[in-house]
Amino acid sequence: MRYSLLAGGKRVRPILCLASCALVSSDVSLAMPAACAVEMIHTMSLIHDDLPCMDNDDLRSGKPTNHRVFGEQIAVLAGDALLSLAFEHMAARTGPNVPADRLVRAIAELSSAVGSEGLVAGQIVDIASEGKEISLGELEYIHVHKTAKLLEASVVCGAIVGGGSESEVERVRKYARCVGLLFQVVDDILDVTKSTQELGKTAGKDLARDKATYPKLMGIDKAKEFAGELVEKATEELRHFDAARAAPLSHLANYIATRHN
Amino acid sequence: MRYSLLAGGKRVRPILCLASCALVSSDVSLAMPAACAVEMIHTMSLIHDDLPCMDNDDLRSGKPTNHRVFGEQIAVLAGDALLSLAFEHMAARTGPNVPADRLVRAIAELSSAVGSEGLVAGQIVDIASEGKEISLGELEYIHVHKTAKLLEASVVCGAIVGGGSESEVERVRKYARCVGLLFQVVDDILDVTKSTQELGKTAGKDLARDKATYPKLMGIDKAKEFAGELVEKATEELRHFDAARAAPLSHLANYIATRHN
Repeated sequence: MRYSLLAGGKRVRPILCLASCALVSSDVSLAMPAACAVEMIHTMSLIHDDLPCMDNDDLRSGKPTNHRVFGEQIAVLAGDALLSLAFEHMAARTGPNVPADRLVRAIAELSSAVGSEGLVAGQIVDIASEGKEISLGELEYIHVHKTAKLLEASVVCGAIVGGGSESEVERVRKYARCVGLLFQVVDDILDVTKSTQELGKTAGKDLARDKATYPKLMGIDKAKEFAGELVEKATEELRHFDAARAAPLSHLANYIATRHN
Repeated sequence: MRYSLLAGGKRVRPILCLASCALVSSDVSLAMPAACAVEMIHTMSLIHDDLPCMDNDDLRSGKPTNHRVFGEQIAVLAGDALLSLAFEHMAARTGPNVPADRLVRAIAELSSAVGSEGLVAGQIVDIASEGKEISLGELEYIHVHKTAKLLEASVVCGAIVGGGSESEVERVRKYARCVGLLFQVVDDILDVTKSTQELGKTAGKDLARDKATYPKLMGIDKAKEFAGELVEKATEELRHFDAARAAPLSHLANYIATRHN
């Protein structure tokens, strides 16, 4: 669990969660347990996706994948334990300044991003689509579920535990939807434009596997254009908030668009 | 997820959860989402335990195991989705008559029964002990974590969402600890005394694998005696409650001791 959780990812999801809390509250620490939880869930999904029976990947963040180091048994169980620890951590470690009803809402939000309407749904359609021609609609379904839903939940959980109003939570949800899609479009672009060393994970594997990607379906230039439009739309939602408080989320959208690994 | 969840288990954990709620509340429906959640978690652990890289089992409750029907990929993902659905179901479906702070406590209790101090811990030590001589203390560690902790959480969650006092919750926890151990002792006895057909799962597999069991470590007669003592101890804790309200939990301890599959 430590090996994969502390392998040095970009921490995009917990940072989004904390930045979203900062948008609606002056106490960003309210969202720390939720921020840790989203990273645990993300790590769980990576460990299980890398398994021999799934993507069978050897490299992750420049290090051997969990099952390559500890074996398949431990990798399956480490993922299971990280998933339950995420909810345990939120439920047991969130401080008394977050009312319990808000915490329950955040747990409901985050858990719904994992299962049959979240990560797992995306992974199953992804697996089923390998080696097949798929439409842009199907590609979006995969990305929305495999990537965007957890990013959305990270942002929304931050705003909920931070005490955001209904309309504030809905606005950050719209921001998060754009950023979620953006994240995947950029991932797809990096897979075809960067080397394995630059990425810290196997490059070109989408092409090698004949997986559907944005560059494959719309061409690399159109994909980059689409990424630009998503940044625009995301930052537009933030104009309704205090500019200083919205700055971290605004910068994050730009960081995600221009990242190199 | 449906295939394994609805495969017709004994529903011991959800029944314990509901019976425990009935001990402290006249409204047993308060615990229904928690009862469903514990069965989802139990089912997840069975699906993952049966995987080829784990126990590699073909039969469960008289039916082919999940990965035998749907493949390893789906089996891993179905387990992941059931685990997150458990917490989603509790958080989103528990009615307004359960105060949110109680619900958070129940979620913390249940989630802690899964990870590195619960099911996963037991499974890891179990895997590591195959083919080795282990002590009675190590055997107890495995069973406490693999079986007893989730049974305990099922009972304790029922009492928490039902609104039991601190001392009532602690009393049902003691009851649950005895029943948890009892459950595993009986499981071990059945493995050596019943046929595959009677059990609905592969019989004698503990012996074949050279796994440590109570009959192996203390002999079959002493194991049966030990089971009797545990029923005594469990029902003793219930004497502090109204006899009519405690009847379901009392009967359950006896049912677990005398079950045949």
